[in-house]
Amino acid sequence: MLTKIRVVLVNPSHGGNVGATARAIKNMGLSRLVLVSPTNHLGDEARSRASGADDVLEGAHVVTDVSAGLAGATWVVGTTARRRRLDLERVTPRQLAVRARDECAHGEVAILFGRERMGLTNEELQRCHAVVEIPANPDYSSLNVAAAVQIISYELRLAALASTPNSVVGSAEPVEWVDAQALEGFYAHLEKALRSVGFFEAGNAVIVMRRLRRLFSRSRLDQNEFNILRGFLRAILAKVER
Amino acid sequence: MLTKIRVVLVNPSHGGNVGATARAIKNMGLSRLVLVSPTNHLGDEARSRASGADDVLEGAHVVTDVSAGLAGATWVVGTTARRRRLDLERVTPRQLAVRARDECAHGEVAILFGRERMGLTNEELQRCHAVVEIPANPDYSSLNVAAAVQIISYELRLAALASTPNSVVGSAEPVEWVDAQALEGFYAHLEKALRSVGFFEAGNAVIVMRRLRRLFSRSRLDQNEFNILRGFLRAILAKVER
Repeated sequence: MLTKIRVVLVNPSHGGNVGATARAIKNMGLSRLVLVSPTNHLGDEARSRASGADDVLEGAHVVTDVSAGLAGATWVVGTTARRRRLDLERVTPRQLAVRARDECAHGEVAILFGRERMGLTNEELQRCHAVVEIPANPDYSSLNVAAAVQIISYELRLAALASTPNSVVGSAEPVEWVDAQALEGFYAHLEKALRSVGFFEAGNAVIVMRRLRRLFSRSRLDQNEFNILRGFLRAILAKVER
Repeated sequence: MLTKIRVVLVNPSHGGNVGATARAIKNMGLSRLVLVSPTNHLGDEARSRASGADDVLEGAHVVTDVSAGLAGATWVVGTTARRRRLDLERVTPRQLAVRARDECAHGEVAILFGRERMGLTNEELQRCHAVVEIPANPDYSSLNVAAAVQIISYELRLAALASTPNSVVGSAEPVEWVDAQALEGFYAHLEKALRSVGFFEAGNAVIVMRRLRRLFSRSRLDQNEFNILRGFLRAILAKVER
């Protein structure tokens, strides 16, 4: 299970935090660290805080945008300190871990951590299926990023330890969920089709798309459903453009 | 409960770790930090890592020996990374938290964290009623002290929240799901729109509709999403039939 989970840090600006994150995940048996446009992630401070986890630090997958960081992930969870008005499922770290365990039976999980000062943007959160909220002191709720990674990795480890090989009751056939990249393609296609039939004339495109994202991230799409919907959108556009 | 628990760091030698510990405990609603002969605990690195928890850092109770740090505590728990030959009860962080909650009904709890490099001495461990073991990767089990404090404080907070009548986590606003009748109307409409753009020419209408029903019954539709989708279908039909 733990090999199918990646921790993605978006624009970490302090090497020390990246090093501490590498250590936190290795301590909990995770190994996959993805860094989106990091700053100085192999500097002295990063190496010193990584301590014996330099292998994880040096093996981190460095990418230039969030999409690349999420490639292949079938369940994406964002993190946020503040309670925002989000149309996203909320989970606790413990719920996240249990869900992640199920997900890893047939897909890959990405957990997205935001910038030190400003967290994740709304656009980044819209790529997530759920958002995890660490139940912190409401008067002082912003955890250091490595500390947040530590708590979530700890819960993931507990879930992994609790799962025995034959724990799944009534296991259905494995589902092939589409990954984050495919889903972004679907949303772009959907928006185009909506536009082509004049749906956005009242000018509410942003709100409508946000609602539709919420709907499909709640349900998720398997490969088959995805193909049907893409086929429908193609047919609409073919008809309209003819 | 959380006001009766103190975190005791024995001889912390890096100010940064002390600052990070102050932040970790304040994030989880704890406030009592005890430092036994610390080094440079009010230096720049300590203050920077404490971030908004300087009140906890500056309010730390500094003592010169462990006995003074434990004064008044009725239940003392030590921490250790390595499995040692100890005649002490072993608890997990979660068990510690539940026990601490009970203890706080009639006493005070101290959790003792050792030096960065060598942990607690046997003499110090002998002052403890139990020892907590964080279930870490056996190949890399030594957590940074602030990371260990973070995990244990998190479990303490969960135990404290579980004992309050109104749990903070998970209260979402009520959702207005559409009823079965409305859903049937939606499926009929969807089928009509699919047909209008020529989607069923391959003759797979029954299977396609079954798949789409499964998708939307998995996600369910709230009133708002329902309205958007019906609007989309109406727009498609209007465009095609024009």
